[in-house]
Amino acid sequence: MMESPVPHEPPIYRRIADRLRQAILAGDLRDGDRLPGENALMSEYGIARATARQALAVLINEGLAVPKRGSGVYVRRFRPIRRHGSRRLSREQWGAGRAIWDSDAGGRPYTVDDLTITLEPAADEAKRVLDCDEVWVRRRRYSVDGRPVQLAASHFPAPLVRDTSIVLPDTGPGGVYARLRDLGHAPAHFTEEVRARMPAPEEAEQLGLPAGTPVIVVCRAAYAAGGTAVELNKMIMDAASYVLQYDFDA
Amino acid sequence: MMESPVPHEPPIYRRIADRLRQAILAGDLRDGDRLPGENALMSEYGIARATARQALAVLINEGLAVPKRGSGVYVRRFRPIRRHGSRRLSREQWGAGRAIWDSDAGGRPYTVDDLTITLEPAADEAKRVLDCDEVWVRRRRYSVDGRPVQLAASHFPAPLVRDTSIVLPDTGPGGVYARLRDLGHAPAHFTEEVRARMPAPEEAEQLGLPAGTPVIVVCRAAYAAGGTAVELNKMIMDAASYVLQYDFDA
Repeated sequence: MMESPVPHEPPIYRRIADRLRQAILAGDLRDGDRLPGENALMSEYGIARATARQALAVLINEGLAVPKRGSGVYVRRFRPIRRHGSRRLSREQWGAGRAIWDSDAGGRPYTVDDLTITLEPAADEAKRVLDCDEVWVRRRRYSVDGRPVQLAASHFPAPLVRDTSIVLPDTGPGGVYARLRDLGHAPAHFTEEVRARMPAPEEAEQLGLPAGTPVIVVCRAAYAAGGTAVELNKMIMDAASYVLQYDFDA
Repeated sequence: MMESPVPHEPPIYRRIADRLRQAILAGDLRDGDRLPGENALMSEYGIARATARQALAVLINEGLAVPKRGSGVYVRRFRPIRRHGSRRLSREQWGAGRAIWDSDAGGRPYTVDDLTITLEPAADEAKRVLDCDEVWVRRRRYSVDGRPVQLAASHFPAPLVRDTSIVLPDTGPGGVYARLRDLGHAPAHFTEEVRARMPAPEEAEQLGLPAGTPVIVVCRAAYAAGGTAVELNKMIMDAASYVLQYDFDA
């Protein structure tokens, strides 16, 4: 049993970052405010430039600040979207005709744009999971508070959804899951795979990501009661905009 | 309904990356093999250097390849760890005296090092979740197939675990959850919060991460049947080494 004589002390750049973060979260520093620069931190704390840079990098990496070339580092306050893995997809949600995003955005204004709906040959993963050669794909971009946060591409087996409003821009009340239910294929079970990586250039562009911001990639398969896969949705999320929450029992 | 006349064609750098990825996954290119360089890709496909670089960057970002300074890009084949959010924490696992990591690593050899066990004042999140002023913290690093993949810091309310083997290096069969059960506080419910960000310098060093590899941060709270929080575990994972899987019903 090793009892530490002094409290575990984080390195100095961490403590500076902690102090700045507290100021941001307490509202003392607000969206668009300029953070103290490297020179200011160096003289205030008596530290090297590399250390000051590290402190600022912590906040940039956490998505709380953004560097502007030649001008400094600015607060970029955006309350992360808390995405509840299971609650948001419960039958009560889409069964009652509500959009899943009304739950996600927590009452904040959101928009959907760049919607395309295409018939395509099924690529590797969609082919394997959905067990078909052709898929209808709904691609779109979500923004919350005017900020792009997610690219999504829902894949459906072509034979299942042709001639339904799943392939129309307006899918009706409750969205695609309510329509799958109308077809007798209500989603009963979901599997989400979560990964993180750096964005591809076109993903960074579509999401407007500052350099050094990773993306969270969620790949979700929806299964009907009999075990038939009815949807494969690939989502690319701005990692700085999201907290994914999952609840489960032991 | 917009039917695309031709299959959705990804940009050329994506197609090159797809071809190289297939060669890696099929075993035609193996761990430690050198990938075709920028010059080779430029002449083979008649593309610009920036495009060749983008193709290689895709594989680097996916954790399938790693650049070595001045020498090229090499295959870095590591089968990602598939971490089942719920199954791995089921009572059958720790209740039977098994280590949770036996399930995680899927039979692959894993090691734990850098174990420290310290008594500390509870910081922000631990204080709030565990509702106490002092915590015992178990910090350690996990490696699979000789590669560091995760840093974990389990926080326990000090009054609850003092004088138990939870504060000893060897926690006994079934680990800390079996010991919490012995205390009458068996974990019954878990909440996991998942985030992704770039690593702090010391995290990158401890995990041996190549530049440009993000980390997945999982913060898990464990609750006993009465709703008491009994553990807060903060895990930092090499994003290129992990797929997190969560299963749930509609």
